Amino acid sequence: MKRKINFNAGPAMLPAEVSQEAALAIEEYKNTGISILETQHRGKDFEEIIEESKHLVRLLCNIGDDYEVLWMQGGGRLQFSLIPMNFLLHRAAYIDSGHWANQAIESSKFVGDTVTIASTRAINYSQLPELPKAIDGNFSYLHITTNNTIYGTQWHELPKYDIPLIADMSSDIFSGKRDYTLFDMFYAVAQKNLGIAGNTLVVIKKELLQRQARELAPIFCYNNHVLENSILNTANVFGIYVSLLTLRWINKKTLVQIEKENNQKAKLLYDAIDTNPHFKAYIQEKSDRSIMNVCFTAHDTLIEEKLLDSCSDNNITGIKGHRSIGGFRVSLYNAITMNDVKKLVTLINSIN
Amino acid sequence: MKRKINFNAGPAMLPAEVSQEAALAIEEYKNTGISILETQHRGKDFEEIIEESKHLVRLLCNIGDDYEVLWMQGGGRLQFSLIPMNFLLHRAAYIDSGHWANQAIESSKFVGDTVTIASTRAINYSQLPELPKAIDGNFSYLHITTNNTIYGTQWHELPKYDIPLIADMSSDIFSGKRDYTLFDMFYAVAQKNLGIAGNTLVVIKKELLQRQARELAPIFCYNNHVLENSILNTANVFGIYVSLLTLRWINKKTLVQIEKENNQKAKLLYDAIDTNPHFKAYIQEKSDRSIMNVCFTAHDTLIEEKLLDSCSDNNITGIKGHRSIGGFRVSLYNAITMNDVKKLVTLINSIN
Repeated sequence: MKRKINFNAGPAMLPAEVSQEAALAIEEYKNTGISILETQHRGKDFEEIIEESKHLVRLLCNIGDDYEVLWMQGGGRLQFSLIPMNFLLHRAAYIDSGHWANQAIESSKFVGDTVTIASTRAINYSQLPELPKAIDGNFSYLHITTNNTIYGTQWHELPKYDIPLIADMSSDIFSGKRDYTLFDMFYAVAQKNLGIAGNTLVVIKKELLQRQARELAPIFCYNNHVLENSILNTANVFGIYVSLLTLRWINKKTLVQIEKENNQKAKLLYDAIDTNPHFKAYIQEKSDRSIMNVCFTAHDTLIEEKLLDSCSDNNITGIKGHRSIGGFRVSLYNAITMNDVKKLVTLINSIN
Repeated sequence: MKRKINFNAGPAMLPAEVSQEAALAIEEYKNTGISILETQHRGKDFEEIIEESKHLVRLLCNIGDDYEVLWMQGGGRLQFSLIPMNFLLHRAAYIDSGHWANQAIESSKFVGDTVTIASTRAINYSQLPELPKAIDGNFSYLHITTNNTIYGTQWHELPKYDIPLIADMSSDIFSGKRDYTLFDMFYAVAQKNLGIAGNTLVVIKKELLQRQARELAPIFCYNNHVLENSILNTANVFGIYVSLLTLRWINKKTLVQIEKENNQKAKLLYDAIDTNPHFKAYIQEKSDRSIMNVCFTAHDTLIEEKLLDSCSDNNITGIKGHRSIGGFRVSLYNAITMNDVKKLVTLINSIN
């Protein structure tokens, strides 16, 4: 088989060794005589998977026991629907920097007073919104989406207000070093930098967990998931195992090296687009640009088709842009190598 | 590797060919150059997986287009928490026949008036509750758990009232032929007869879907999941694929044959327990007995240890009972063969 270079935004490419080890564990998990697909969620083997994954998350984030680490099902959508249910007491503040940030706002409105403190929705999220110097209003938290997958923007500097900061980091978690202690909560779906679809990492500061805003059915209440150590009900055993394999891979490679490569990959691609008269990056403001998702358009449709065809001929997939922008979106998650990007850039450069 | 016989209640044993095909698809899915773990949820390949799985569910249930078929994350707990949110208008009726049935009741209480019409909680669910001849009260639906995994009871005949019937069929779906048109909704976690943990089948009659009781954030609203054909957000692609493989396996074997074997398997095991002076079945009322989960205790702990050791020596796992009953629980899901049960029965018979 000729493995394609997969630049999709998620489900994304996995490191080859993660895929291989996952397939082996399906045959048999660690000499247990049982497949990982049959491994009990309430058993020693899975407990070890949970504990090692929690340890690695804390290690990579450089956070301590004052944060709880959870694995949950239901994707980002469930998270940003649960957050106001759990933590919105009077009102909550939101930054509207993209489609998913906006969906979080819409979901919060079902729960309570939801204030958008900054938005670039009117200009189709083609840059990051400017933040107010201060915000007033007895907000329970501020919600931010650190990387906007569809448009290719990323917050390289975080807002600093005196209220709890909650971040959807689905598309840039572990893309490099970050000060995770700035967050009171962060969450990330696994299918980008952290494993496969169906599993979500949720990290919450104990202090925030104490501010439960209302009583909820057990499945909706973070404190219950903490109490049950991510097995309030049957966990997605395989999904969590693949995330553990990915965390091991990240830890072995180190976040320093990953960040270095991610910056190099993004620079190479943005440079190729910026210097080619046929293409234009969707995000012009360089300081807003994402190193994870690079969005750009061609000046005419013939050029667009030419690049799509040329990628298709060269075993490259997943570069078509989201329908709300069109053009191209190239996702440079951790499993994408410098060589993968070089191959794409060669094709871009050949269009002149 | 010597594959163990796995009698666990879930995550349960998969048919060997399902595991094998799943592992192959991780290497590459259908000559796409991409692993199933990287396959896009919004793409032709996954659409085919969804459509074929829906077709097979309708075929096996002998239901038509008046039912919607969904795959969701979040397990049974999310389902029985969403049901009252979506459908409880004035009040809802519940049958309390086990731990999970009771948890459904507790979750419904967060939403509205929740009436338990029958319960055997006081006798630790050691038989099925007797049902009232009629129920009054403008109920939006009646919720039943068709098979109670922990205690080993199963409703072989369904209550017939003139209100919508909603069933948690997690541990006995596709264990045999059933008249699925009696249900207005049924759901089942995949990790027993239908695949792996992290994926849940949800089937709802269109008529019931029209009775949306209140506005909800999109992720909580069944109508939204229907509208988006199970990809309201990134679906658990791999989990759904394994469920499709399992549905194909069921369809090939036929429900008639599966039911026949399940009845034979259960009879063989119950007979061995009933005729052995050292053991006692937890469920004495034969018409209440589950063909999926067989629970029994030993009269003394030495005998209990003897059977556990003898199973362990003979490559058999997963027979320890749930802590609320103790003793043994042997789950006879579809992937367990008659030969597997015969091996266990030989060990039981050797204790005399």
